Amino acid sequence: MRIEKDSMGEKQIPEDAWYGIHTSRSMENFNVAGEVLPLEIIYAIVRLKAACATANQRLGLLDQDRSRAIRRACDAILLGMHDDQFPIDIFQAGSGTSSQMNVNEVIANLAVVELGGKPGDRQTVHPNDHVNKGQSTNNVFPSAIRVACLLLTQRLDAALDRTIASLGGKAHEFAHVPKSGRTHLQDAVPITLGQTFSGYARALEKAKRRITAAGASLLEIGIGGNAVGTGINTKPAFRSHIVAALSDATGLPFEVPGNGVEITQFMTDMGQVSAALKLLSLDLLKIANDLRLLSSGPNTGIGEIRLPAVEPGSSIMPGKVNPSICEAANMACIQVVGYDSGVAMACGLGQLELNTHMPLIGANLVKSFNILIRTCTMLDERCIRGIEADETRCRKNFEASAGLATILNPTLGYDRVAALVKEGLAGGKSLKALVLEKKLMSEQDLERLLAGAFGPVP
Amino acid sequence: MRIEKDSMGEKQIPEDAWYGIHTSRSMENFNVAGEVLPLEIIYAIVRLKAACATANQRLGLLDQDRSRAIRRACDAILLGMHDDQFPIDIFQAGSGTSSQMNVNEVIANLAVVELGGKPGDRQTVHPNDHVNKGQSTNNVFPSAIRVACLLLTQRLDAALDRTIASLGGKAHEFAHVPKSGRTHLQDAVPITLGQTFSGYARALEKAKRRITAAGASLLEIGIGGNAVGTGINTKPAFRSHIVAALSDATGLPFEVPGNGVEITQFMTDMGQVSAALKLLSLDLLKIANDLRLLSSGPNTGIGEIRLPAVEPGSSIMPGKVNPSICEAANMACIQVVGYDSGVAMACGLGQLELNTHMPLIGANLVKSFNILIRTCTMLDERCIRGIEADETRCRKNFEASAGLATILNPTLGYDRVAALVKEGLAGGKSLKALVLEKKLMSEQDLERLLAGAFGPVP
Amino acid sequence: MRIEKDSMGEKQIPEDAWYGIHTSRSMENFNVAGEVLPLEIIYAIVRLKAACATANQRLGLLDQDRSRAIRRACDAILLGMHDDQFPIDIFQAGSGTSSQMNVNEVIANLAVVELGGKPGDRQTVHPNDHVNKGQSTNNVFPSAIRVACLLLTQRLDAALDRTIASLGGKAHEFAHVPKSGRTHLQDAVPITLGQTFSGYARALEKAKRRITAAGASLLEIGIGGNAVGTGINTKPAFRSHIVAALSDATGLPFEVPGNGVEITQFMTDMGQVSAALKLLSLDLLKIANDLRLLSSGPNTGIGEIRLPAVEPGSSIMPGKVNPSICEAANMACIQVVGYDSGVAMACGLGQLELNTHMPLIGANLVKSFNILIRTCTMLDERCIRGIEADETRCRKNFEASAGLATILNPTLGYDRVAALVKEGLAGGKSLKALVLEKKLMSEQDLERLLAGAFGPVP
Amino acid sequence: MRIEKDSMGEKQIPEDAWYGIHTSRSMENFNVAGEVLPLEIIYAIVRLKAACATANQRLGLLDQDRSRAIRRACDAILLGMHDDQFPIDIFQAGSGTSSQMNVNEVIANLAVVELGGKPGDRQTVHPNDHVNKGQSTNNVFPSAIRVACLLLTQRLDAALDRTIASLGGKAHEFAHVPKSGRTHLQDAVPITLGQTFSGYARALEKAKRRITAAGASLLEIGIGGNAVGTGINTKPAFRSHIVAALSDATGLPFEVPGNGVEITQFMTDMGQVSAALKLLSLDLLKIANDLRLLSSGPNTGIGEIRLPAVEPGSSIMPGKVNPSICEAANMACIQVVGYDSGVAMACGLGQLELNTHMPLIGANLVKSFNILIRTCTMLDERCIRGIEADETRCRKNFEASAGLATILNPTLGYDRVAALVKEGLAGGKSLKALVLEKKLMSEQDLERLLAGAFGPVP
Repeated sequence: MRIEKDSMGEKQIPEDAWYGIHTSRSMENFNVAGEVLPLEIIYAIVRLKAACATANQRLGLLDQDRSRAIRRACDAILLGMHDDQFPIDIFQAGSGTSSQMNVNEVIANLAVVELGGKPGDRQTVHPNDHVNKGQSTNNVFPSAIRVACLLLTQRLDAALDRTIASLGGKAHEFAHVPKSGRTHLQDAVPITLGQTFSGYARALEKAKRRITAAGASLLEIGIGGNAVGTGINTKPAFRSHIVAALSDATGLPFEVPGNGVEITQFMTDMGQVSAALKLLSLDLLKIANDLRLLSSGPNTGIGEIRLPAVEPGSSIMPGKVNPSICEAANMACIQVVGYDSGVAMACGLGQLELNTHMPLIGANLVKSFNILIRTCTMLDERCIRGIEADETRCRKNFEASAGLATILNPTLGYDRVAALVKEGLAGGKSLKALVLEKKLMSEQDLERLLAGAFGPVP
Repeated sequence: MRIEKDSMGEKQIPEDAWYGIHTSRSMENFNVAGEVLPLEIIYAIVRLKAACATANQRLGLLDQDRSRAIRRACDAILLGMHDDQFPIDIFQAGSGTSSQMNVNEVIANLAVVELGGKPGDRQTVHPNDHVNKGQSTNNVFPSAIRVACLLLTQRLDAALDRTIASLGGKAHEFAHVPKSGRTHLQDAVPITLGQTFSGYARALEKAKRRITAAGASLLEIGIGGNAVGTGINTKPAFRSHIVAALSDATGLPFEVPGNGVEITQFMTDMGQVSAALKLLSLDLLKIANDLRLLSSGPNTGIGEIRLPAVEPGSSIMPGKVNPSICEAANMACIQVVGYDSGVAMACGLGQLELNTHMPLIGANLVKSFNILIRTCTMLDERCIRGIEADETRCRKNFEASAGLATILNPTLGYDRVAALVKEGLAGGKSLKALVLEKKLMSEQDLERLLAGAFGPVP
Repeated sequence: MRIEKDSMGEKQIPEDAWYGIHTSRSMENFNVAGEVLPLEIIYAIVRLKAACATANQRLGLLDQDRSRAIRRACDAILLGMHDDQFPIDIFQAGSGTSSQMNVNEVIANLAVVELGGKPGDRQTVHPNDHVNKGQSTNNVFPSAIRVACLLLTQRLDAALDRTIASLGGKAHEFAHVPKSGRTHLQDAVPITLGQTFSGYARALEKAKRRITAAGASLLEIGIGGNAVGTGINTKPAFRSHIVAALSDATGLPFEVPGNGVEITQFMTDMGQVSAALKLLSLDLLKIANDLRLLSSGPNTGIGEIRLPAVEPGSSIMPGKVNPSICEAANMACIQVVGYDSGVAMACGLGQLELNTHMPLIGANLVKSFNILIRTCTMLDERCIRGIEADETRCRKNFEASAGLATILNPTLGYDRVAALVKEGLAGGKSLKALVLEKKLMSEQDLERLLAGAFGPVP
Repeated sequence: MRIEKDSMGEKQIPEDAWYGIHTSRSMENFNVAGEVLPLEIIYAIVRLKAACATANQRLGLLDQDRSRAIRRACDAILLGMHDDQFPIDIFQAGSGTSSQMNVNEVIANLAVVELGGKPGDRQTVHPNDHVNKGQSTNNVFPSAIRVACLLLTQRLDAALDRTIASLGGKAHEFAHVPKSGRTHLQDAVPITLGQTFSGYARALEKAKRRITAAGASLLEIGIGGNAVGTGINTKPAFRSHIVAALSDATGLPFEVPGNGVEITQFMTDMGQVSAALKLLSLDLLKIANDLRLLSSGPNTGIGEIRLPAVEPGSSIMPGKVNPSICEAANMACIQVVGYDSGVAMACGLGQLELNTHMPLIGANLVKSFNILIRTCTMLDERCIRGIEADETRCRKNFEASAGLATILNPTLGYDRVAALVKEGLAGGKSLKALVLEKKLMSEQDLERLLAGAFGPVP
């Protein structure tokens, strides 16, 4: 054990801990979520620390040795070498000070050792005066959430691209499988199974676009604005130096924000990202629910498609195969909706110069991103790619659908067709039979109409 | 126009208005919802005013003439004679002061006239010193929400009772219609259509019980506690006198609260009622969705039941009939869920001695009650009562269901039955055919199993 | 009374009604919300009808007389001459068929009379075959929601612009009023009251940008795609003709959608608009809450600003003036959050070729737009413009704040300053007194630091 | 590796795994939450398995050896000896089949070894035919959620009791500390700090009562109802035997449900528990926010109480101490609100004979319980117990409050007092000074009124 000291007194720290006294206090204070703050946010803080060390050196505020030692410490953390040194619960100080100081302490101690000192030697590298130089949790932490979300967006984009490609493939594969459309769950005009999947692909393309657009507003980062966004204790050029270093390191075009105060107090840019993730969830929920409906059966449901079987579906009903992948996706999507409602509430509850719900906002966003990355991947790999059409059933439904009669409207008028449909339903006769029997149209004309039933719209 | 005056200055009031200067200011200040505060809450405030007039008289704090005049004014309002005198928007002063003063002013002026004076004569009957004697918006308003909810609960109970009775009737009517159960939307073990409806009836009984239980906590009313719940400027017996008078007038056993401060600051009792309404909405949503699924078709869906047709379903597809009543119910239920999320957020955002979101809480509760009363009634009268079973389809599905095989488990074991189901699906053979063909069981034994397939559970 | 007939039978219609039998059925069927579908959506449907009449005429599918008569009927409705002819409840057929047919019927009857016929004469102008030609509720209704939202966005933009201008004015007016910042509600580094208001202005600028961006995705309209989005029964050029006519009429650059099926099934574009409105609400909530905190008092709160008094605040506490405008705004914002949660849930619950929660989605969006337009206007006119600074209190807090010490960090280091703050708090001494007493810095140096305390950040 | 086989084929299982082939498939299928299903639910399933083994033995359906071996396996799991054998992600098959079969497999293999066999020997003890005998996931899983919640309720009750006791202690300790009340954040009539804390204590008592009441509806457990709740393949007495065994083991009075179908399809009983937890969260949110407001300062806020310092509050502002414990509590409460919104949505989305969102419902409930248990404990131990009053500040605010004048109403009337308050604010004079100066009352009478300012209400 070593002894460390801060303004509140002394404390014993485990000899092998890279973290210090602040972290140790926070570990005792907070154990509510039962989960540590996601590493994605820790890593993003670390990236900001490296950029600040560079900026401070360029401004002559930090000597080259300390600056380099800090950056090397950051590199080691980003390689995953110290993941167990960030043990603080999600629900901590509302600004994220607990985790921010945790990062400061770990970096300081790693840097101290790099410079030949011993952990806890605040003279050589001080967690506040050197690692945190010109910084404040109030700007580091929200900036870190922004960085983390942008990096996660890249991974989600990739997962979405693969899913969209699979849906597009199915749209092509099923382009010539006619089936009954269903509106209000009632027989409607025809559609091809391919058209159905093309709609899903398009929906996800739009969802991806929304997330990209939301991400663009995250490029403004408030780092350097300090406690309330005014940049107290910093030089004017500090922020542009940080942004430059961070952009170099990540390849993302970060920007100095238009207003330092707004970027500190308002978390709404993050709320927008969360909303975009929620909207993607709602799309996936709808798609997964459709797949469950279309594959319902095998004998007493719609059964127009077959999903890949992934495990026995029941502990009591032998041979039952369920759409378990879709169900897992449904629950995942609902959870993201719930996380978003937390993020939204938190965004609205900032007070004066700070929003003290930032760890919740950051953690929920990271969780939602990860859930959606994995959901898309699971849906794609374990369900969508393996979907098969039951072409026989589809065609049968195409022909039997009460909605098919709509193609007669332009020729016969709405009221007359309505009467015809009623008669057909009552007598169990097919539309074709009725039309021919009543000599309303030649068979040839009817076939021509049927061929055009899928419309001119792509 | 007459001139009225308050601590902020003078103002012209329409000659024929029963309301006064405070109301007039509020009308100018607030026009955000575009809807006035629901009359149910206005009436509940009026009931409280009448009870307070009685209580003040009994305590010798208000002379008999004024007290009686106030009560007569209240009676006139409750008869619906002055509904247009309460024009204030829902989104007003957060305590509801605007509407509370509106009621005080209307009552005062009605009472003044009753006593031979002219509107605006604050000497004869003063809106604050007489009508509001011993009261504060901070306790009148939440007490009024409580009273309004309890009265609405009686109407919702009646609507629920009728709906439950109809569902119970269907449970009886369809008791002998076997069909396939569906879990995960996949064929499952058999169930009767009657059992299905008995489940719905039971769900609504439980929902009703939850609302009743939530209502019980509303019987505590904070009236008389005054601005912060301590009862400043009142005599100890004031509150019990009010409660007695109000209980007499309504037939409900209101109580003096256990803690005056809590009842003033915390709106959670109302949040509980809102949550109970939300839970009912979720049940109705599920039931309406089931009815839509079971009636899907007519030709390409499940089609085990038929809902009454209420209007042509499509402007383009002739003869289409949709489950529009269920759809309207679905939307209504979702809206109640949304209102509840507003109520919950509002409940959590009280500060110190007051929650300044009370008009929202009250209005959303009244709206949710009314929506649910009408939804139950619509579902009952225009849908449930007219539901018919398609017995042929039900029986066909009963026999075809892949879940039927479960009845063989105790005899043949899970693994062997699973193989059998797989074989049946592949070959398109019915379970019965397979069992007899393979001589796994005598036909008689199989029939006996089939007869017991609906289980011993009520 | 006149008699009308449809596929379900005959019905009496009031002689003076412009609507017809479908509307009449829907009026009986639906009375759940207790509110009719907002006129904004009715008008948007009417605009689409006019554009379709033009398009059908250009394609030679509708003769010039009928087309012109339909357009003239539309004009009359848009002038507000028939607002009482649209009596259908919000919670109706889930596609909005009830209101769509209502519009078709009113237009048909107005056009019939224009052409010399009598209401109900379906030969002259038929609600389905002529007014609804080439259309389906499933595409008309969501297109109408899009049109309505875009028109409301213009009005919200204007209200936001005025509010932003007022906030910007205050930022300028208070630019030289120093005060204490507060993070975690605890004394923090200094800020000027002007910086505070500049942050609010910037937040609303961003909120406006989000709404504009969301609106852009509404320009795709699915009209002409028909029942399931495939454009059944239409000519390929139909949709571009409609879009052209509508763009002409509104001045907005509408587009034919990229995928007809997606635009029919998915309401997520609208969900995005709703989310953007929610995010604006959260910003307004935060701002209104800040104004309440900053104006808390008069004697026992923060009291750094004074809000305009709008009405006496209490029915019991004389002379009390409350931040009622902010409170009304708070409730309005919470309601929008609730409406959004309904919209989101509805967006996620589409099934197969249709989402049967469109009237809810449309109505909630219109309500949220209107609430926010009015909230911004109220906040601007009745609160923000009249805000005054209590400069004495602000300066006193600036000097007294425990956060002021932060300016000493670069000179003295974090640990030493921390000890100093502790000593100051314990002894009740001001920072300046301590610094000078301990000769840590010359008075001149300290003044220089104080002057730079508001930072270099705009 | 050993080879196991099911209806879908063969699979290799790690030699040392107690789980089997179904678990192995599920591990590959599901990895979306990134978290395994909470052990609390696994343990509850295990308790049900033990009770079923007993019931099956009593009914003569399971021999004594197997029954005892199964129970011994259950005991071992409940002792925590096999926690790593339940690796399945939360988002799995929507019925929880994956985890249910996981439990069946682990128990079966433990029992097989107990009986001298080797893992995977389905003859000796079969996971479906023996461990799962007479059971179905569709009833085991929701029953397990009920059991888990009831056991967690006991722990939450204990945490709440301690917190209520601490609040009650503070109510007593601060009973004689007068302060200004604040309504609308504006000076209001007086209150004691003790009355404030008594309100908090009462709020939590009510919250506890709500959770208890919600829990009562969980005592109905559907186990034995099987796949759709009809009890297919079971004997009539099966369910009462299970309930008896489970009640013996847990000390809780479980019941056979009133309707087997409802208990299988509807998750609303759980939704009620979730709602009750949400309501507690809203109360805690309000209390934590109040503590933050009351302790705001130290120099520029309200500062009537002091919270215990738990860690340095800022990485840049030395000496800053923040209400971090309250902030952590705030975030925890918001998360529970979010979890509840997920639970509610999931409750509403059941379809036909099953709700396929049960693992989400169960996991969110367990998380919310645990979060609230830890939040109460943290708030109690690290904040509430250590709260100190700043009596000087409290008394100063008591005397300075503009709300104090209310005590003059009964004597002077509302309008006259309102004018007095206005004059006092303008001239900066205290109420007492004004009253005496204007000779409105003798000093003695005024003191008497002041002494009664805290009202007669407990």
